[in-house]
Amino acid sequence: MHTILSLLIGPPLPTQRLAGERLNKIRALAAFSPDALSSIAYANQEIFLGLAVAGAAGLAYSLPIGLVIVGILAAVALSYAQTLPAYPGGGGSYAVARDNLGQGIGLLAASCLLIDYVLTAAVSLTAGVAAIASAFPALWPYRIELALTFLVLITLANLRGLRESGTLMAIPVYLFLVSYLAMLAVGLIKALLSSPGSFSATAPAATESLTTWLVLHALAAGCTALTGIEAISNGVPVFRPPEAKNAARTLVVMALLMGTLFLGSIGLTQYFAVVAGPDETILSALVRRVLGTNVLYVIVQTATLLILVVAANTSFAGFPRLASILAQDGYAPRQLSFLGDRLVFSNGMLLLAGLAGVLILAFNGDSHALIPLFAVGVFLAFTLSQAGMVVHWLRVRGPAWKLKAAINGIGALATTMTLGVVLISKFTEGAWLVVLLIPLLLLAFHTVKEHYREVARELTLHNAVPEATMPLRSPRVVLPISGVHRGVVEALRYARSISDRVTAVYVEINPGDADRIRQQWEKWGQGVPLVVVPSPYRSIVGPLLEYLDRLDAESGDGQPASILLPEFVPARWWQFLLHNQTAWLLKLALLYRRRRFGKVRAIIDIPWYLRE
Amino acid sequence: MHTILSLLIGPPLPTQRLAGERLNKIRALAAFSPDALSSIAYANQEIFLGLAVAGAAGLAYSLPIGLVIVGILAAVALSYAQTLPAYPGGGGSYAVARDNLGQGIGLLAASCLLIDYVLTAAVSLTAGVAAIASAFPALWPYRIELALTFLVLITLANLRGLRESGTLMAIPVYLFLVSYLAMLAVGLIKALLSSPGSFSATAPAATESLTTWLVLHALAAGCTALTGIEAISNGVPVFRPPEAKNAARTLVVMALLMGTLFLGSIGLTQYFAVVAGPDETILSALVRRVLGTNVLYVIVQTATLLILVVAANTSFAGFPRLASILAQDGYAPRQLSFLGDRLVFSNGMLLLAGLAGVLILAFNGDSHALIPLFAVGVFLAFTLSQAGMVVHWLRVRGPAWKLKAAINGIGALATTMTLGVVLISKFTEGAWLVVLLIPLLLLAFHTVKEHYREVARELTLHNAVPEATMPLRSPRVVLPISGVHRGVVEALRYARSISDRVTAVYVEINPGDADRIRQQWEKWGQGVPLVVVPSPYRSIVGPLLEYLDRLDAESGDGQPASILLPEFVPARWWQFLLHNQTAWLLKLALLYRRRRFGKVRAIIDIPWYLRE
Repeated sequence: MHTILSLLIGPPLPTQRLAGERLNKIRALAAFSPDALSSIAYANQEIFLGLAVAGAAGLAYSLPIGLVIVGILAAVALSYAQTLPAYPGGGGSYAVARDNLGQGIGLLAASCLLIDYVLTAAVSLTAGVAAIASAFPALWPYRIELALTFLVLITLANLRGLRESGTLMAIPVYLFLVSYLAMLAVGLIKALLSSPGSFSATAPAATESLTTWLVLHALAAGCTALTGIEAISNGVPVFRPPEAKNAARTLVVMALLMGTLFLGSIGLTQYFAVVAGPDETILSALVRRVLGTNVLYVIVQTATLLILVVAANTSFAGFPRLASILAQDGYAPRQLSFLGDRLVFSNGMLLLAGLAGVLILAFNGDSHALIPLFAVGVFLAFTLSQAGMVVHWLRVRGPAWKLKAAINGIGALATTMTLGVVLISKFTEGAWLVVLLIPLLLLAFHTVKEHYREVARELTLHNAVPEATMPLRSPRVVLPISGVHRGVVEALRYARSISDRVTAVYVEINPGDADRIRQQWEKWGQGVPLVVVPSPYRSIVGPLLEYLDRLDAESGDGQPASILLPEFVPARWWQFLLHNQTAWLLKLALLYRRRRFGKVRAIIDIPWYLRE
Repeated sequence: MHTILSLLIGPPLPTQRLAGERLNKIRALAAFSPDALSSIAYANQEIFLGLAVAGAAGLAYSLPIGLVIVGILAAVALSYAQTLPAYPGGGGSYAVARDNLGQGIGLLAASCLLIDYVLTAAVSLTAGVAAIASAFPALWPYRIELALTFLVLITLANLRGLRESGTLMAIPVYLFLVSYLAMLAVGLIKALLSSPGSFSATAPAATESLTTWLVLHALAAGCTALTGIEAISNGVPVFRPPEAKNAARTLVVMALLMGTLFLGSIGLTQYFAVVAGPDETILSALVRRVLGTNVLYVIVQTATLLILVVAANTSFAGFPRLASILAQDGYAPRQLSFLGDRLVFSNGMLLLAGLAGVLILAFNGDSHALIPLFAVGVFLAFTLSQAGMVVHWLRVRGPAWKLKAAINGIGALATTMTLGVVLISKFTEGAWLVVLLIPLLLLAFHTVKEHYREVARELTLHNAVPEATMPLRSPRVVLPISGVHRGVVEALRYARSISDRVTAVYVEINPGDADRIRQQWEKWGQGVPLVVVPSPYRSIVGPLLEYLDRLDAESGDGQPASILLPEFVPARWWQFLLHNQTAWLLKLALLYRRRRFGKVRAIIDIPWYLRE
């Protein structure tokens, strides 16, 4: 088991290597941008599906919608660029909202972000599989299996550690950028050499009339193009020093690339009046229109698949990091803040992979079905983060604070309006699920925090009295026996070595059996008294616990007796089935039946190893 | 949980009530005969299905086959009647074969019987559901679910205890006997008043030619009519005294009833030339022919269902009893010999129910598919038992021993021949599975026995030296701590109360953390030394185990240190997720990683109960 793990994720790394696990800008772009860049795949697709139902008249709105979205993109990117130097420790929306708007709002942002990281992984993988299945329709029936396979692969890559997966991920990102930008350039040249197409000639017949509602609906879906822009602000500490500056530059480059890819593909789609059939994505149709159905087309589709698979990596950088911050603040299980063998937050990664896998299965590997859940959390988190930044500037001021506050204010306004549109137009299609989930997550955060607080209160030595360290008298020890054999004799020796008040107890199930035991005890009992407890109902645990309670009550010194359990440890797993495991049952009963047997009682295990 | 159990199976019974749980003959017939009596349901069906493929010419062989089977029945019944007084302690084929032919052959018989008990339960339930689904075709698609529901119901009834389930079971058995005998009487009168039918007019066209092979095949399948005759010989101790005499009388009555029902129904089927369609059993068709499709018909079919459901009860009497005998002899896990709360062998019953449920699921609730597995074990066990009786008479002699030996010899011969026919004609249809399973079971018996023997050898005090009871010096105690808090202070007090050689150990995961711990230890450490073990790879268990080994090696007195583990016990299940459970991991590692850390080391648990 251990060897297989080592092979898959590499040997453990010592803690002092932690500082070295940083990324330069080229690698950081590859690690944090795939989600943002690849969003064009599903955003374009959603705009197309949203408008195509209104036929040619609907599709004519693609470019205007694209321009609005790029406007929002610019506002959000500028807004985040201001966040990075202000919050070099990372934490993104959570940290910003917490510091400026209070812990409650911070947790609200955190719950949105956690949900979105999971959805990013699920949506990216399913959209990636859709891209490659557009090129190879034979893969269409296996979309769920393919998406899950890729999920497993990137989970393993991430468990190996950030730097190595950074290298692994860089290739597809740059392959995508190069091939896609080249495709757009070719498309631009072809467009200049030809006259524009017309949707009237290509679009399917309208099945719905063109309403403002329909356009807003398509706009809301298209806003998923902005997902991922948040990732860098969460990951500032991973950049090489100067962290904030490097991160900000990477963010600007990323936003410019996003805008170019998005507007370029939307513009060309409208210019050539491209439409797609039911088993193909609109981007696939555009690429075939520009490049033809040939090896170049296959390269672009493969690059699309790869960057979308890698996009899930953004979540594997962000989710475990945010979960560990929450865990350190006491709002999530502590295990999420432990560094694994390879210096990554392995538990968070496994949790993310599990949740994304469930989503892929539950939504049949269809990204179009997942999209309505997606944008609510994204834009709520954006809004909270930028509103927090406005408060930040009002508080700390500093050079040009009014301008900075205005930029963040515009960002907040833009994302609030988008959030409203998304919430209304997608509510019945699945957004309600997220609206329900967020308060549940907040409740969980609160409950966890309360539990840790209570434990700390119980354990504190702050106002402990000096008597807390007074010596105890050596405890009474009770040794339950099932017979007289070597294991019992050994256990008895141990019991006598820690106490001079030892009692052996035999629970008699078959009336009369005790006589034989008493006889043998004469010889092997080392002078320790033997008590026989009858059990008319053939239970061992019940009568024994009752005896212990009786003994404690009689002794009257308030110090419960310790119990010593000789326990068989079989050499092979199947031998467990051949032994009664009474010791385990007793231990469980002693530990967990405390409503009836509430004493804090030491349980001493004396293992007896059976030979192989 | 405990309350629900009480409701379903009744409150626990004290051991002294065991002697009272005996059955009179009327109840004993109801408890042991359902399998035998109800066998006609599937035996008739198998003969019909086996012959119908050869059309009218084939079906003409029904009655001759029926007569041969009744001949075998007589031989077997006589043979078993002689076994009862010779083996009043019960155990049937296993006891007889073991005592006379040696332990090995006895276990062979036992493995056959265990397999057959499971198959009886599965076949009876599926055949019973087929009977009622013949009357109500709407139930046909739910045969698996229905069979499993009945399985659960009889399991619960049996877990309540034999006497109460005896009462419960008696009603359907006598309802079946009365309604079926009445139906046969009506049929006989109608037959006398009418002329015989002809299969030429009713039978489907032949799809196979009539060969000796085909007739033998049908005979083999029909021999399942004999299943269940063994049950009484296993259950002699359950009869009221004089046990053997009462059991023998019950056996004779049962065999006569079996013969009457079987020959009566086969005879009438042939006289009226009854055939059945694909969704109906042949018995259902016969009853409708005799009584018409009316309420009387529904009563007979319901009685057939009920007695077949109750037939599975034979297995619930026999299987756990045989398993407990095997367990007492050391060939099966000991737990199978424990009496449950209600003075029944609950573990055996649950095992039987689980196995029968798996068979029902695996064979899609179709008794016709299960039958080929059935007869091999039955007739092998019959043969071994009767061959054993021949040896018995040769050995003990006594009055008329030659006649008795001859009767058992004829029985053995008849069942050996039947076994040969069954084995050859059903091998490829499923009998091979049983032929494979029997040696595997024998291997399991042997392995279990060998394990218990080895454990006994290891534990025996037979040649133990007096030093085995020499006093030990009080042990070194190691207390791993994760911080300095109330739980640790309490645990430290306990450690000091049992030893004056206590060491606290802190595993340092984040370099530098130990300084704070050392500082707090100054105040709360009660003078006990604190050792800090660095863990560059952030594992707690590994460094701790290595430290323990180092400590043992350094001390050089051959006495391994005890380890004391403070352990959180959360008040609610979900709180487990919020704690690290390091104590559990450590205990598991200490107990089960013995290849690397092979010391027998006492493990002392100090539970710390978190408040609710």
